[in-house]
Amino acid sequence: MESLRVALGERSYPIHIGAAIIDSAGLYAPYLSGGSAAIVTNEVVSPLYLSKVRAAIVSAGARVSAIVVEDGEQAKSWQTVDKVCDALLEARCGRDSLIVALGGGVVGDLAGFVAAVFQRGVSFLQVPTTLLAQVDSSVGGKTAINHARGKNMVGAFHQPLAVIADVGVLDTLPDRELRSGLAEVIKHGFVLDLQFVGWLEANIGKLLARDRAALNHAVRRSCELKAQVVGADEREAGLRAILNFGHTFGHAIEAGMGYGEWLHGEAVAAGMVMAAELSKRAGLLRKEDADRVKALIARAGLPVQGPRLAIERYLDLMQVDKKATGGQMRFILLDGLGRATQRGDLDPRLIRDSIAAAVR
Amino acid sequence: MESLRVALGERSYPIHIGAAIIDSAGLYAPYLSGGSAAIVTNEVVSPLYLSKVRAAIVSAGARVSAIVVEDGEQAKSWQTVDKVCDALLEARCGRDSLIVALGGGVVGDLAGFVAAVFQRGVSFLQVPTTLLAQVDSSVGGKTAINHARGKNMVGAFHQPLAVIADVGVLDTLPDRELRSGLAEVIKHGFVLDLQFVGWLEANIGKLLARDRAALNHAVRRSCELKAQVVGADEREAGLRAILNFGHTFGHAIEAGMGYGEWLHGEAVAAGMVMAAELSKRAGLLRKEDADRVKALIARAGLPVQGPRLAIERYLDLMQVDKKATGGQMRFILLDGLGRATQRGDLDPRLIRDSIAAAVR
Repeated sequence: MESLRVALGERSYPIHIGAAIIDSAGLYAPYLSGGSAAIVTNEVVSPLYLSKVRAAIVSAGARVSAIVVEDGEQAKSWQTVDKVCDALLEARCGRDSLIVALGGGVVGDLAGFVAAVFQRGVSFLQVPTTLLAQVDSSVGGKTAINHARGKNMVGAFHQPLAVIADVGVLDTLPDRELRSGLAEVIKHGFVLDLQFVGWLEANIGKLLARDRAALNHAVRRSCELKAQVVGADEREAGLRAILNFGHTFGHAIEAGMGYGEWLHGEAVAAGMVMAAELSKRAGLLRKEDADRVKALIARAGLPVQGPRLAIERYLDLMQVDKKATGGQMRFILLDGLGRATQRGDLDPRLIRDSIAAAVR
Repeated sequence: MESLRVALGERSYPIHIGAAIIDSAGLYAPYLSGGSAAIVTNEVVSPLYLSKVRAAIVSAGARVSAIVVEDGEQAKSWQTVDKVCDALLEARCGRDSLIVALGGGVVGDLAGFVAAVFQRGVSFLQVPTTLLAQVDSSVGGKTAINHARGKNMVGAFHQPLAVIADVGVLDTLPDRELRSGLAEVIKHGFVLDLQFVGWLEANIGKLLARDRAALNHAVRRSCELKAQVVGADEREAGLRAILNFGHTFGHAIEAGMGYGEWLHGEAVAAGMVMAAELSKRAGLLRKEDADRVKALIARAGLPVQGPRLAIERYLDLMQVDKKATGGQMRFILLDGLGRATQRGDLDPRLIRDSIAAAVR
């Protein structure tokens, strides 16, 4: 097992990465001084890992309850938050209870948001069970639910006390979800680390074959990169926005198709192709590098084209994206491979053309 | 106009207190750099003060929208939060928009919670229009909505950028609400300041007659006392809990009768009599001082007896109160007039007897 640290002063926390660590009582014990925990998970993950995590917490000496929500993006709703709060109160959980988010990005976002607002904030652990959650959503304290008008419109910055990322659990992950997670791994390379892009190009086959050592390295390097950014800009005042590369387009795809139709990583993948296209058209990225972006995404088995929605629909969906501030639409672009930049002054025609160039 | 400061490091903020300051553009201007604001208010307050606040913000140069919610405690719900978020998105408000909470405690709690979670947190101002909100709920950053199982079960600590407390607006406050606000004023004396208790005993008549100088002093001293406590313990790790004197019983009364049936201050008033009774029975408070507690509450026109609910019902409602941690019920008691203490080791019989002694 390896442990990294997200450096956030008094809110610093460790990320533990390894195989078969999900049931290590010692990883949970430091956070159970309140004597009670509630595991929030979903109906897909619970038959696989709930009993292991429950046993670890019980053997660490705490009372534990489990709250199982429905699978899928629709769980990121007020209704589900209310249900989880209800179950917490039913289980007599209080301010000193620990919430354990066991599942993918949806469960982490939902349970993290519940932890942020239940009784004005309780502690929580992230136990991500998808690659996407391990390399991205479980790290950094962003929690959220969706609104009819847009994804993640309601949420909080609420850091976990620790992240327990067991790469062994990826064995049970469907192929499509593995690839979706790789989109965020690749993204970390594109925006921050040219060398890691090279490593990914050389190892994409091993990752798709679930080679454990390769997965371990990919998770560790992604978490390192993300932890650096989050440590420098916890609340996304500036730098952190580069992690949204591909996401402005990606959120439009997710919202336009209905949440859950495209997986998050799939939408981000096509969004990254659009953003690379825009970077190229804006004169920031060489054609060869834009081609490398597209090629790696394609080799990861991810979509390099967005769904056939009208360009106006894309633009409309992007306007309400939360990264649109003061009416000015801002984009995260590549200023070379492994290097991101923010731009808010783009000719709208370039944006239209970039979408058109990457739509089915 | 006088200005106090809540000292919370980088989250410090001023409380401005005075008459006819609600429409001073200069008090809003420092917080409008984002260029847009949304005033959240209710259907009772909006005809009285919305146009004044709107004009002040417009003359400070910002675009402004207004969101009017229903009156009453039921507005502290998921449904209303969702509606307000919807209106914010409709008005194209973003992360740099300012939310202005214009109203009493309900509006402040609701709008503050929306500000805490909309797009993971936006800035807000408190413009309290009731005495209760001016002396208590607008100061300290506690925001919340209710849950079917208990009041303020879901919320956040989210400090405003400033509080604008105009004692002139209290002219339009119904008598019953004025008295409800006095309950929290009196509470600040009981738990923190014996001298202020003496001042209140001497000036309760003036306060009820809405003497502006007396109200100004009561608001200022209450805010000073609360600001000291909040500055020392923002997230209620310890000391801040003393501000909940009377609230464990009070919340049971509010929940047991249905939120809104008893005003918050009325429930707290009867709750303080119960808590003083418990303090006396626990050997902490002299009979004369418990009598002074009850007498001042009675002179303020507030209830000194709780509603006739079964003792078991009181206890049951108090168990789910958020101050019950680890199954141990904790109480804020008086260890002399003007001095509070926390106790978690009380004989349950004393609690029952104290309720019984102060029920109609």
